[in-house]
Formats: sequence, C-alpha cells, structure tokens
Amino acid sequence: MLEKKINMVGLDKVSIDDNFWKDYMELVRSHVIPYQWEALNDRIEGAEPSYCMQNFKVAAGKKIGKFQGMVFQDSDAYKWLEAVAYSLMWHPDPELEKTADGAIDLICDAQQEDGYLDTYYILNGLEKRFTNLMDHHEMYCLGHMIEGAVAYYRATGKRKFLDCAIRYVDCVSENIGPEPEKLPGYPGHEVAEMALVELYRVTGDRKHLELAKYFIDQRGQEPLYFDQERKAHNNVFHWEHSYYQYQYYQAGKPVRKQFRAEGHAVRAVYLYTGMAEVASVTEDQELLDVCKKLWNNIVGKQMYVTGAIGSSQYGEAFTFDYDLPNDTIYAETCAAIGLVFFARRMLEITGESRYADVMERCLYNGVISGMSLDGKKFFYVNPLEAVPEASEKDFYKKHVKIERQKWFGCACCPPNVARLLSSIGGYAYEANLQEFYMNLFIGGNIEQTLGGVEQRFSVQTKYPWEGDVHIDVENGQDSEYAFAIRIPGWCGVWTLKINGESAEYPMKNGYVYGRRIWSNGDTVDLHMEMPVQRIVANPRVREDVGKAALMRGPVVYCLEEADNGDLLQDIYLKRESEFDISYEKELLNGVVTITADGKRISTGDWKEDVLYKPCFEETFKEQKLKFIPYYSWSNRGAGEMLVWVHMK
Amino acid sequence: MLEKKINMVGLDKVSIDDNFWKDYMELVRSHVIPYQWEALNDRIEGAEPSYCMQNFKVAAGKKIGKFQGMVFQDSDAYKWLEAVAYSLMWHPDPELEKTADGAIDLICDAQQEDGYLDTYYILNGLEKRFTNLMDHHEMYCLGHMIEGAVAYYRATGKRKFLDCAIRYVDCVSENIGPEPEKLPGYPGHEVAEMALVELYRVTGDRKHLELAKYFIDQRGQEPLYFDQERKAHNNVFHWEHSYYQYQYYQAGKPVRKQFRAEGHAVRAVYLYTGMAEVASVTEDQELLDVCKKLWNNIVGKQMYVTGAIGSSQYGEAFTFDYDLPNDTIYAETCAAIGLVFFARRMLEITGESRYADVMERCLYNGVISGMSLDGKKFFYVNPLEAVPEASEKDFYKKHVKIERQKWFGCACCPPNVARLLSSIGGYAYEANLQEFYMNLFIGGNIEQTLGGVEQRFSVQTKYPWEGDVHIDVENGQDSEYAFAIRIPGWCGVWTLKINGESAEYPMKNGYVYGRRIWSNGDTVDLHMEMPVQRIVANPRVREDVGKAALMRGPVVYCLEEADNGDLLQDIYLKRESEFDISYEKELLNGVVTITADGKRISTGDWKEDVLYKPCFEETFKEQKLKFIPYYSWSNRGAGEMLVWVHMK
Repeated sequence: MLEKKINMVGLDKVSIDDNFWKDYMELVRSHVIPYQWEALNDRIEGAEPSYCMQNFKVAAGKKIGKFQGMVFQDSDAYKWLEAVAYSLMWHPDPELEKTADGAIDLICDAQQEDGYLDTYYILNGLEKRFTNLMDHHEMYCLGHMIEGAVAYYRATGKRKFLDCAIRYVDCVSENIGPEPEKLPGYPGHEVAEMALVELYRVTGDRKHLELAKYFIDQRGQEPLYFDQERKAHNNVFHWEHSYYQYQYYQAGKPVRKQFRAEGHAVRAVYLYTGMAEVASVTEDQELLDVCKKLWNNIVGKQMYVTGAIGSSQYGEAFTFDYDLPNDTIYAETCAAIGLVFFARRMLEITGESRYADVMERCLYNGVISGMSLDGKKFFYVNPLEAVPEASEKDFYKKHVKIERQKWFGCACCPPNVARLLSSIGGYAYEANLQEFYMNLFIGGNIEQTLGGVEQRFSVQTKYPWEGDVHIDVENGQDSEYAFAIRIPGWCGVWTLKINGESAEYPMKNGYVYGRRIWSNGDTVDLHMEMPVQRIVANPRVREDVGKAALMRGPVVYCLEEADNGDLLQDIYLKRESEFDISYEKELLNGVVTITADGKRISTGDWKEDVLYKPCFEETFKEQKLKFIPYYSWSNRGAGEMLVWVHMK
Repeated sequence: MLEKKINMVGLDKVSIDDNFWKDYMELVRSHVIPYQWEALNDRIEGAEPSYCMQNFKVAAGKKIGKFQGMVFQDSDAYKWLEAVAYSLMWHPDPELEKTADGAIDLICDAQQEDGYLDTYYILNGLEKRFTNLMDHHEMYCLGHMIEGAVAYYRATGKRKFLDCAIRYVDCVSENIGPEPEKLPGYPGHEVAEMALVELYRVTGDRKHLELAKYFIDQRGQEPLYFDQERKAHNNVFHWEHSYYQYQYYQAGKPVRKQFRAEGHAVRAVYLYTGMAEVASVTEDQELLDVCKKLWNNIVGKQMYVTGAIGSSQYGEAFTFDYDLPNDTIYAETCAAIGLVFFARRMLEITGESRYADVMERCLYNGVISGMSLDGKKFFYVNPLEAVPEASEKDFYKKHVKIERQKWFGCACCPPNVARLLSSIGGYAYEANLQEFYMNLFIGGNIEQTLGGVEQRFSVQTKYPWEGDVHIDVENGQDSEYAFAIRIPGWCGVWTLKINGESAEYPMKNGYVYGRRIWSNGDTVDLHMEMPVQRIVANPRVREDVGKAALMRGPVVYCLEEADNGDLLQDIYLKRESEFDISYEKELLNGVVTITADGKRISTGDWKEDVLYKPCFEETFKEQKLKFIPYYSWSNRGAGEMLVWVHMK
C-alpha cells in the first residue's frame, strides 16, 4: 500500500497556542501577509517595485502598460493567496478575505478565452507561449496558481479561483501531453506536479492526476524536450558551459534513473515532492523507491546540519556529495522549505519518523533563519559561517548577506515562509480514521474524529526549550484509536505517562503508538531529556573536520560576535566542557542559550603584520562561550557568526 | 641615498650550473621558447590559435585579415623576445637570434609613421586609439615592448627593436602627458612604468624617466582620468558594481595615498615595482615609503605561504587582509612573478635580505608551481588545496585546475615564467663596484669586477636540498671588496668558513659582509642547517587555524593523494612528530621528500549515508605521511593536494 497512511488535520481544526510558533504565525498573519500585499502592489517605499498586481491589471485591460518584473512574477500573487487561505482557516478575517477576493477577481479577469493565464505572455505576445517551458516559468506559475486556488477553495468554499485554475490546467492539457499533436514538454521549474495531485484530490478528475504523472514520466526522456525546444526557438541555454547541463532542471535523464539530488535545489525537492505524491496516488512502488534514494542522498550526503540544502550559489544548486561549505554556501530558505514539503509526503506515505526528524530540523533551523524575529526582513541565503568583511569584499561571498533584507526583486522566499508558517499546524498533526500522529511538538488545540468519535486534544509544551509535552484528551465517549507520538531522532531518553502512570506502548517507525480506549479527561505526558549535544560531521565533509556544532533538542546553535567577540574561527570548544543552559526571556524574543568552556587562540603572540611563524605553539586564553539558537542570529546588528566550532 | 645599492650582474657574466635551476633554464631555452614561438605563430595542433604574429603581419600589410585574439595579444611577442634575449645572453644561438630578428623586422614593419604600434588599433581603426587606456592595454603592450627591446639590445647590441620602442614612446609622449593639449592618462595595466625607467637607463633620455614618473604621479588624481575617459567614450566599466571600483586598477586615489595592496594583483605589483624604480632614480623618499607600506601589507597580511598573491579569481585580485582561502584561491603565477620583480627592486634599493627572502619564497614555490616538470604545461592558478571533484563540479573552484594546461588563450603566464627563469642568474647575484651580493644560492660561475679587479666565483651547492654552499674565488690579483651572503630568514643556525677557517663578519640587513682582501684560490663555505619547519599562520587567517604547513629551507611542502590517499582533510600531522628526509633521485626529477607521523580520522566509523552524529569521538588510524615539494605537485596525474594540514 502506497496510499498515504496519514494526512494533515484540517487547519480549521487546529488552534495553535504555542510559545514558539504562535508568534511566527501571528507575525505572518498580522505583518507579513499585509506587508506582502503592499509589496505586490508596489506600495513599499524604498523597495524595488514588484509589478505583480500591476501586470494582472494590464493583462486584464484595466490599465495601460507592459509586463514588468521577473517572468514568474505572477506566482507571488498565488503564493500570497495560499498564505492568506491558510491564515483564514485558523483566523477568519472578512476584511482580508475581501482583499483576497478582489485579487482573485483581477486574476480571473486576466484569464484568456481558452483558459491561458500567464501575464508575461499575455503582455509580450501569446504567439510565443509554450516556447520556453525550460526557463519561462509558465508551468511554475500554473503550479502555484493551483496550490493557491486549492487552498483558497478549502479555506472559503469559494470556487472562482479554483475554476480559474482548472481552466488554465485544461488549456495546458490541450497544448502539452503525449498525443502527437501536443508538445511533449514539462515544467522547467517544478511545482505543478504536486499541485496537480492536490487538485485531483479536490476535483477527483483523473485528467489532473494524469497530467502530473505525464510531467514526471516524460521528464528527461530522450530526445530531451528542453534540448529540442531551445534549438527550435533559439532560446539561451544558461547551463551549456556548466557541468549541470540539463540536470540543472533535473531533466537530463528520466526521473526514475536519478538517484542523486542534482541541480537547482528548490526545483529538485519540488520535483521529488511531486514524485512522492504521484507514487502514492498511483501506487507506483518503483517511483517511491526512487524518492527514497533521492531522500537518502540528500539527508545522508548533501544536507547541512540546519536542514539547509543547495550548497552553491551558482545555479542555487546541489553540487556533489559531502560538499558542504559553510561560508560560500547558498542554502536558500525556499530549498529548506521544499525539503519540508518532500519530508511531509514521505512521512505521510511511510509513517516513518525519520522524515519528521528532518522536517523538524528544517523548521527550527534552516527555514526560520530566513525571517527576522520581527517578521520584517528575510534571508534568501542562510550561511553557517558569516564574516561581514568577507560578504562585502569577497565576490564569492557577496550573496551571503550579514543582515536580512527588506524585500527582494525575486520574492520567492518571503511568501514561501508565509505559506508554510500559516499552515504549520497541519505539519505537526496528522491523522487517519484510527490514528492520530503528533509529528511535531506544538502547543494548541486540535479537533479530530478518531474511532468514530470527535476528539479534542489540548497540547501544552514549552518545546523546543523544554522536553515536556502534556496532552489533555477530551471526547464525548470512550473511543479506541492510536495516539502516535514521534520520539525524535535526537532524543535518547524519554518517558511516557498516561493518566500519570508510566505507560509502555509499542514503538514503530520511530513513533510510540498509544493504542487504547481513550476516555474523556485522559492525560498524556511525554518527557524527553534534552541535553546539549555535540554534533560531529562525517569526515568526508571537508569543511567540518575537527569541529563540532551544538544542538539541543531540534535546535542548532551558533556563536555570534555580539556574545563572543570577533575572529570566531580562533575559538575552540573544549571536548570535556560542561554545558549550562539558561532561558533568557528578554533575549531574541526568549531563547535558551548555552554556555560552555572554550578557549581562544591568542592573537597577542602575533604582530599584525606577521603572517607565518615556524615551529610555533599557539597560546590559548580561556573563554566562556555563549551559544544562541542559529535561527535567531543577525537580529542584533551585523557581526560574525559560526555554527561549526573547532574542538579541542 | 635612494640610488640602488646593487644591480644585477650581467647575464652574460653568469653561467648557471645548478642542480635545481639549470634544468628549468634549459627547459625554457630548449623547449618553452621554441614551443612559444610555434604558439605565437598558431602552429600548435589542438591549441587555440594565438594570432599574435598574424596580427603583426596583417598590420604590416603582409597579409589580409582582421585583428584576432585578446587586446593585449601583441605583448606575447614582446615577452617572448625578452625571454629570447636573456637566453641569448647565457647561451648564444645564432638560429634563435635570426628568428628573433625576423620577428622584430615584422614588428617594426607594423609600426606607423608617427611611431604608433598596437595592432589592435592599427587594425580596428587608429582614430579610436588612446580612447580606452583603462582596459585596452595599449600602454601594457608598450611596456612589454620596451622591456623586450631593452633586453634584446643588451643581449645583441642591435638597436632596431630598441629604436622602434623609442619611437612608440615618443608617439605616446606626444599624446599623453601634463600639457593641456594632451590626455592626462596612464596605463590601465601597469608595466610601462618600470619599463620606462629601464629604457631611461639605456638611453639616458630624461624624457623617458619623466613619462614613467608622470604615469605614477598622475595615477588616481582627481578628476579620475578613467572615470572621465569611460564616460567620454562610452566604455564599459567592468567594476561598476564591485567594491573594487577604480582600485581594481590601483587608480581610485593617488598612489601616494595607497597603503594596502588592492585590485588586480599582477597590475598592483607591477605598479609598485615601477614606483620603486622611480623612487630610486628620482630619490623620492616619500614614494619609497609608500612602497614599503605596500610591501608590508602584502607580505604581512595578503601573501600565501608559497609567495602567491591575489586570493580571488574575481578580478584576479587582492581582497582584504588575512583573507587567504586555500581552495577558491587565485594566486596567479604572474602575480608571484610580479612580487619577485617588486622584491628585487626593494632589495636593490635597501640591501635588506627580507626582500630576498620573499623573492626566494616565490621562486621555489609559487612561481615554479606554474610550470610542469617537463616544461610543457602551465598553471595560471596555484591552489594550496585541490580536490578534483570540486574543480569539476563547484563553480567557485572551476578556475582551480587539477592538472596544468597546455596553452591558454590568454598566454601571460608561460612567457612570464620563461623570461624570469632565463634571467634568474641576475636575481641570484647582484653587485656594485665594492660589494658582491649572493641573494640566492644557485650554483655556477660568475664574473664580476670588484675592487677594480676581475673576479670569478665558482659556486657549488645542492640547494635547496642541502644547506651547504661552496665558493671558489679566482682573481688575477688580491683585491678588497665585500662578498655579502644572504642568511635566509628561515635559517636559524649557520656557520661560515673562509679557507676552511671559521670566519666572523658583521651582519647587516640580513647579509653577512665578508669584507676583506680576497686572493686567488680563496674559498668560502657556508653551512646552513635545514631542519623541517612546522609553519603556523597568523590566527587572523581564518582558513589555517589549527593547521601547519611544512617547510624545509625555502621549499614549501604538500601532501598529495598519490602518496597519502584521498580525503586529505582527514589527516592530522602529529605535533610531536619527527621528520625523516630523503632525497629521492627518481621522484619528480629528484626531490627531498619528508616523512612524518600522522593519523587519519577513520571513516570506518561512518556509514556513507550518515552525515551527523551526536557526542561522537573520532577514532584515528596511524598513518605515515609523505610530503613532497609543493611546486612539484600534479606531475603524477590528477589527485588531491593539500598544503595546510591539521595538527594534533
């Protein structure tokens, strides 16, 4: 059975009330979403215009003008609408819904007779549409449109946007597909694959599933469509002189023959997510096995300790196994988000906690590092080592920003963060008719029918700062089902109590399955010991040899100049160091910091203008080291930051 | 007194007979020079054409065609002629001289009525000449033409090429200079400055010196000439969006206000060499002080342990202090050669051995690493850490070649190596009327008049493999002068004997001054202890913390995969290790190798697809490490290489 074992609980059934995530969700709702709407409408002073909504206006004939912005500018509106939809599910807001309805009206007005909807080609000449699937993002915009439309339909029950998306899918289906009169193409930037499966879940129309499957199966088949397309239309091939070639697009060979994650990292994980969806719905074991190999390659050979992926700025791409530079890194926020998407599907299909482990790793580290604590600024690039002077003066590090930026011309990451954070409840809690899965430890109230009876779970926790989780079960009548709790990979020692009594239940795939008859008033108490862990990397990773990274629970820590001075590379963490932890309420919106014994190579032995000395033994100064959660770095001004610290 | 204390001995008076350098010189003479002539004439099968000589033919009206190749393609011919000139000084070769005369005839035939001679503009439209001094290398070609012409005149006594160069200088002087009707410009790529001083030494014409001085003093003055020029002629400004700005050309501010080496590394050291020359001839203490500051900045904050400089491929440039990445490095062969040029001038002016120390460091490491042991292949980029897969797949390392290349479209390095190696005798031995300086320990016979009497020194040594140098003095009559021997900075223990007896003479500026009456048959024996030294870098250098590089004498060592296996980053050199040295005659043309005790992190503890483990102590395997001289790496096929090794 490849059918999903579990699915997200409805976001309207989850009311998050969590010391960690609730702030982020509120920031997204109250700040990011309104701010992005202003940005999409070019009303942010000092920021470069987005042109996104203006393009729709011009395409709808409501304004005179030309297409402006990136070829994929439309997708920003769709991602925004998706975030709005999730937000409306857990926080109804008629005013916001009205704004969204207006945006949807405008989008629909721009749709062409035959369903086509991409403002770039509507404004630049429809005769050129579908001539550059490789680079012109029509299918990417389609994918995000579907995702936004499905979410908005689920949130509001309104079909207008959904029908608009279906018409565009119909238009694409009439132009692309296996029939001889159609183009044998597929998306240059994947996302439509997973979106079409989700659309199929709503419509039940197998045509939507078939298109997703076609996109996946046709990808990389000989003769290569992209190769033929670019030659036929004289399109530029940006990767002609790179070793990526068509694998930049994961399109150099059939996807079933791809076992290493390659090329543009966001595209890659979006594709794999779509593959997992198709494998599940079509019960395609071979395809799922490929997904597992790709997964194993990523998390076993190409993932940073923060869950970040895509080590090279060039092509925003994967490079080669164990190539994980910390300073010239790319590690795009969107790629970590994409890995969360992939992880959730693999978890849903297999029920294996190792996928949730990575999901958690990404969420608490490489994803939220992308957003400032005030929700106003964003990182695209999430380095594990940062030096202000290098970012300023080293061309190879100039993409590594030391401070988060307000808004970007290419605005993929902020709306992506927004849509993920506003739907995080669905990642935390999943279920089927007989099993309830607690994947992530996020406080709040969840309603779910299990064993035929409506249950209400009230979850209280101070995770990730403390390892205790308390759950109150409310139901109208006793009911039998399994309450499955993930025991995280990082956790060595834990205890489970039900109604205050130690409880022993079978472990399966990393979840403890509390299958029993649950009564109203039952309580569950999970206690996870949460020591500071000194993490070491595989010695095949060149950059991390002799170094350690600290983690506590799911949280990766770092040193910041603000606490430890500059020249962080000269700091050694003592191998025998004890760790003191302290919850600092006033610091960085409230974080647990770690203090450890360290020492620092003395620069006092060195004149500034002496570079090399023979037969020299360093002298060290003792230094107390203070580590803060990685995601919270760069919220106190510019300075050095370091995750992997020398060990001694 | 800023006049030079010493000058090169005449190359015709030095007959090198040295176990280390003679092979290189012979390679240059018998292989590189003939090969380059073929290359300049596009007769190398499989190599991209140079078009160099063809451009001269077309410009001279002897062939129909257009300009092809780089804007500075002419300079390859001039550098080749310079190398030929040096070679002819110590190895007369009528056939080669005839070929060179033919090349000179052709060059002179291309010269215009008014002396102008740059085939790029002759063939692309003379009306455009002098409209892009910033990037179009007219002055660079002029500089190399002068250098070649002066050398050829000195080697052969023939004036044709010299007169041709003088006419071009006259033409430039009529167009560029301080007078209001002239352009207030200067070279975009420096070299003409030092060349003009050398021309002045031959011609005695102060006009030539004045032009050099003008180029230096005018550089970077407000209003910036390059800024005005590019705006006036709509030239592209490549560095507009880089932090280098006009400092890429060392032209963002007056040279007397520049105290950090900045911008394109070759240009920088060529400029500083010219500044030192002008400071010396014009007795300009202020300018010399600037040179010293720039020197100190380079060797104290921006030089690799191999003497390489210019850490970034972007702009082939200096970046910022202590920024010395070993893997994304640029470290162009030509830049190390330029540093040798600068060093020699500073040495000649000050008599301080610290300049010769750097000269020696460059020559035995970062310069000759640029050429394969068979003289057939060249590196532009000289990494201190190389991994084949990274060079293939990491865009940021693709300029770092693992194997030397046959010939380059931009052919600056090979002819630059050739001209330096064929004149190395002049770097080793310098003199004035009363003092003879042994700067480098290179075997051979040198004739020089000292104290009014012709002397002949016969030097025997196995340097750099052994630290003993024996000198026989021959002269027709007793004569008093100082035989000054440099005691290298790396040398802690040494003894000097004259006629077999321990001799004590005063040290000054790092030279021991054997001032006495020298008789025929006198002998000098210098013994330098040459232990293996573990070199440590200033802890401000991020990349080298916790690591050591081995040196023995002037030679930097490295680990190669061929001897030590791959994953060189996992190797630790033991702090307490003893070093065994062994001269291996058959290895790499004969080298001293170093064996040391090391250990290697075991990958056996790690599954291939596990990236991170908590609280893990590495296990180590003992491993004997074998180090080879850095310059000799990559002569046994592709593989990893590492200079800075972890210490434990």
